[in-house]
Amino acid sequence: MAPTTNARVLFASIPKGIHLAVDFPIPGETTVYDTSQQIDLEHVPLNGGFLIKTLVLSIDPYMRGRMRAPETKSYSTPFTLGAPLVGYGVGVVLRSEASDVAPGKYVYGDSIPHQQYAVLANMDGFDFLERNPKLPWTVYVGAAGMPGKTAYMGWKEFSQAKKGETAFITTGAGQVGSMVIQLAKRDGLKVIASAGSEEKVKFMKSIGADVAFNYKTTDTREVLAREGPIDIYWDNVGGDILDAALEHANIFGRLLMCGMISGYNTGYAPNKNMHLTFGKSLTINGILVFHLQQKHNAEFYSKIPALLAKGELKYTEEVHRGLESVGEAILRVQKGMNTAKTVIVVAEE
Amino acid sequence: MAPTTNARVLFASIPKGIHLAVDFPIPGETTVYDTSQQIDLEHVPLNGGFLIKTLVLSIDPYMRGRMRAPETKSYSTPFTLGAPLVGYGVGVVLRSEASDVAPGKYVYGDSIPHQQYAVLANMDGFDFLERNPKLPWTVYVGAAGMPGKTAYMGWKEFSQAKKGETAFITTGAGQVGSMVIQLAKRDGLKVIASAGSEEKVKFMKSIGADVAFNYKTTDTREVLAREGPIDIYWDNVGGDILDAALEHANIFGRLLMCGMISGYNTGYAPNKNMHLTFGKSLTINGILVFHLQQKHNAEFYSKIPALLAKGELKYTEEVHRGLESVGEAILRVQKGMNTAKTVIVVAEE
Repeated sequence: MAPTTNARVLFASIPKGIHLAVDFPIPGETTVYDTSQQIDLEHVPLNGGFLIKTLVLSIDPYMRGRMRAPETKSYSTPFTLGAPLVGYGVGVVLRSEASDVAPGKYVYGDSIPHQQYAVLANMDGFDFLERNPKLPWTVYVGAAGMPGKTAYMGWKEFSQAKKGETAFITTGAGQVGSMVIQLAKRDGLKVIASAGSEEKVKFMKSIGADVAFNYKTTDTREVLAREGPIDIYWDNVGGDILDAALEHANIFGRLLMCGMISGYNTGYAPNKNMHLTFGKSLTINGILVFHLQQKHNAEFYSKIPALLAKGELKYTEEVHRGLESVGEAILRVQKGMNTAKTVIVVAEE
Repeated sequence: MAPTTNARVLFASIPKGIHLAVDFPIPGETTVYDTSQQIDLEHVPLNGGFLIKTLVLSIDPYMRGRMRAPETKSYSTPFTLGAPLVGYGVGVVLRSEASDVAPGKYVYGDSIPHQQYAVLANMDGFDFLERNPKLPWTVYVGAAGMPGKTAYMGWKEFSQAKKGETAFITTGAGQVGSMVIQLAKRDGLKVIASAGSEEKVKFMKSIGADVAFNYKTTDTREVLAREGPIDIYWDNVGGDILDAALEHANIFGRLLMCGMISGYNTGYAPNKNMHLTFGKSLTINGILVFHLQQKHNAEFYSKIPALLAKGELKYTEEVHRGLESVGEAILRVQKGMNTAKTVIVVAEE
């Protein structure tokens, strides 16, 4: 078989805020779709590893943090300039020299390169997946993947949820937030949820939020003053909303810190209310799914895909097709323009 | 017996920052020593309550928070303008109409009025104390009182201390901080401790701190970069030092929020580093001794006074004599000029 194109999405430059007032990643500049590479699928050397065909890739908010200079420390590894982006994805094994990896197997992990085909050295950092026949692979990078795990494992580990309590969940229309809303409702809580559009408000109500509002047009403090105090706060935004949550937290409140989309592109807004932690005996927990997986992975896969397949847990997706759509999809996520969990279908099986 | 003077310390005005650049409480203005009241100890009506003679009073940092307008919400009850201050103290019962309170008993609580004699309605909020014969009553408002309890119960409940870990303790020469240093050393930790004078640094070393420094002359971040990362942070200051601790916290670090002396008089400095909570899976717990006492009180009194009496736990006191010294003592504490836990001996037994 003749060599075939191996299209890739390269990390081409660090966002610098030259073209826009703030430094959002720019498609075609921060990331570049590249078709210059060829691959011979039958003969490419595997060196003891295995060759995958990439099926789906996940576009996640945290990817912005990897678009940085390597000298800036953070919890995620920075992307390498000139190399493909890497992220969560699912691939199918085409060829293998690894004794534990058979062709036809499906692998999932956070280090799938943004290219059509890739040779992986070994299974470190990857898991084999079995697909529930009622679910597409895209769900396995969303509600049944990292975002779903973040929600499920963070909630399970840190919420200490008790029936009748009140939870406030930010970015409630996102994949993590929408899962948290549903988990909170299943636990018998009153759920207040916020997001940035009327469409998202409708969606949050449709999945069970008791109080859903658009934080761009409604004052968060007014809602919390009326509907609170809040026993659990799920933070995906940080900044002033975190301060508002600290103000309206109940005694013994739990604040689950999952992300800060408000700060990723424009800098983190300072918090003024940390002195409220001791007066109200609050607990704040940072959530990093990587630290929770070992404990909760088996339970997650045994429960969540089945509930999603039965429709007892709802999910939505914004599906883009082809690696050429990655740059725009990333920008949509960073700007909050995406309507749901954003995934790229790179190839059908 | 003829009526006798019942000297008091009245809350006369809310600190306003007119006379000083910042609004520290001013002796003689914020608080006024008053000798105008007389009391007839034999005939003063008890109305079913009991009469105490105040022996010792505690001067604590948190008292600043009570010197506020009643409409400003906080976790502590505001002082009443024109009425005596109230705070932690020990009194001996002189007369009683309460069936559960016998003359000669010693009572301890956080609502002892700053006056020589007081009629208390009942034991709500008070405990009976028995004194270890080797300890003066002053210790029962310090290392064996609320500050000691705050240290012991906060550490016990939230530190998750493991031998070999590193703890960073601020205001390490204060009653709370110095107790935490010693508890951390007893648990086998490496202890980094900071305070604001060379004298305090010496004291912190004398009670076991492995690394002690003066934060006014030494850069906290440099110390933490060299001696960290820190697994446990005991925060009594807040502001930029809390941010430094977040920067140098280890993965799975625990931050115990106990107070923010840096903000009580000049406003709370904002925090810029709350986004580090999720990357490092940090846990932050607010400590309010009031919420921990029920669980830990019995164990505290069975262990700590004995260790203090034997010298296995060290404590220091700055003892002032007479109610007339209260105003100055409060200011010294707020300015960090006190050399040790500050107590007022109102009367000998």
